[in-house]
Amino acid sequence: MHKRLLLISSSRIHGQEYMAYCRQDILDFWGPVKELLFIPYAAFDQAAYTEMVRSRLEPFGFQIRGLNEVADPLAALAEAQGVFTGGGNTFLLVHTLYQTAVMAALRERVLAGMPYMGSSAGSNITCPTLKTTNDMPIIMPPSFETLGLVPFQINPHYLDPDPTSTHMGETRADRIREFHQLNSAPVVGLREGGLLRVEGDQMQLLGVSGVRLFRSGESPEEFAPGADLSFLLQA
Amino acid sequence: MHKRLLLISSSRIHGQEYMAYCRQDILDFWGPVKELLFIPYAAFDQAAYTEMVRSRLEPFGFQIRGLNEVADPLAALAEAQGVFTGGGNTFLLVHTLYQTAVMAALRERVLAGMPYMGSSAGSNITCPTLKTTNDMPIIMPPSFETLGLVPFQINPHYLDPDPTSTHMGETRADRIREFHQLNSAPVVGLREGGLLRVEGDQMQLLGVSGVRLFRSGESPEEFAPGADLSFLLQA
Repeated sequence: MHKRLLLISSSRIHGQEYMAYCRQDILDFWGPVKELLFIPYAAFDQAAYTEMVRSRLEPFGFQIRGLNEVADPLAALAEAQGVFTGGGNTFLLVHTLYQTAVMAALRERVLAGMPYMGSSAGSNITCPTLKTTNDMPIIMPPSFETLGLVPFQINPHYLDPDPTSTHMGETRADRIREFHQLNSAPVVGLREGGLLRVEGDQMQLLGVSGVRLFRSGESPEEFAPGADLSFLLQA
Repeated sequence: MHKRLLLISSSRIHGQEYMAYCRQDILDFWGPVKELLFIPYAAFDQAAYTEMVRSRLEPFGFQIRGLNEVADPLAALAEAQGVFTGGGNTFLLVHTLYQTAVMAALRERVLAGMPYMGSSAGSNITCPTLKTTNDMPIIMPPSFETLGLVPFQINPHYLDPDPTSTHMGETRADRIREFHQLNSAPVVGLREGGLLRVEGDQMQLLGVSGVRLFRSGESPEEFAPGADLSFLLQA
């Protein structure tokens, strides 16, 4: 079985319901799989988060089981048909994935072919590290290393610099340039409305927004929805 | 000797030269002290950073020595009349302060009365932790704990939510609320143009911008320049 990932920048885009803009992409990705194990670890109230996601994805035809609702998370993961990790705070998510030992077990299952869907922080953790998150470091995880299922970094909710801004803080592009002062992995600036579908050694950009690709020492490049980004899977 | 701190949100505000808006506050704070030891560790090119700061602060009457220019940073720190830490990436700054053992030595000297000025990341590190930085976690420091010279957190470059935004990512206020889910220290949202002057157990807000104070479980409060914020020094 090859590696299968659906990496969503943002569960919502402005003016639309939860996952509405990518509903068909989600249905295509999951095909006959209808039972998803949901990881709510990026949120503080895991029970409320699982309930929200259940209420939103049941109308898509999915049954949702929350990792917070099972007695043995590792056993639930071992028998899951597919996993979805929602967004929230990336530091909290990574901290909890290590604390529960779900990090290593999840990685193993996805490498063995279990399909994985992530949104925002849940997409970020498929990268080598959390180093391109936008989130506040409200808790220190034991490591910044994450699942390493792809060899590039994602910056979710990528935001273009606002030419009218009077704010002196760094733009997102400035921050990614800082990342490249110390790190070499390419960074996919995944705008809200963009999602990446990985099938083995193939990767395509789906959704309604283009991505901006930052590579160390090179000018950023733009790619439109539908683009073949498979070259980014070759580390 | 009491503790003396000048904590600046941002070295520049829109349309003005480096430190122009707070020049008089800086001169008042330093008084007869004219030799500053500059810590350029938040930048990648430390030599260029020290040169830039020297060229900007010499016209104010200061002599600048960069910690990158001395053979023995700890010896230079031991004999410094005052220290200024500039902004940049907070994770890089904290990482380097630990790596060089400057963190502990600097804390000791400031607690013993040596005046300290910080801007942006340089202000952030006077707090108990780096957990309210806006910066990208491009390198993992050995700890998120910082100088702990004040018992509250600063969020530099604090930015009010933009009511016209269509972006779905968290606002700064959302992120500070997340911080308070796991941490109890008050957070001073220090807007660009605001600076805090600490003299022993007294603290005043100076500059041209108000602050927004976030306390766990309470509604945010606003304070205008000139406000007495000494109550925040009582942990």
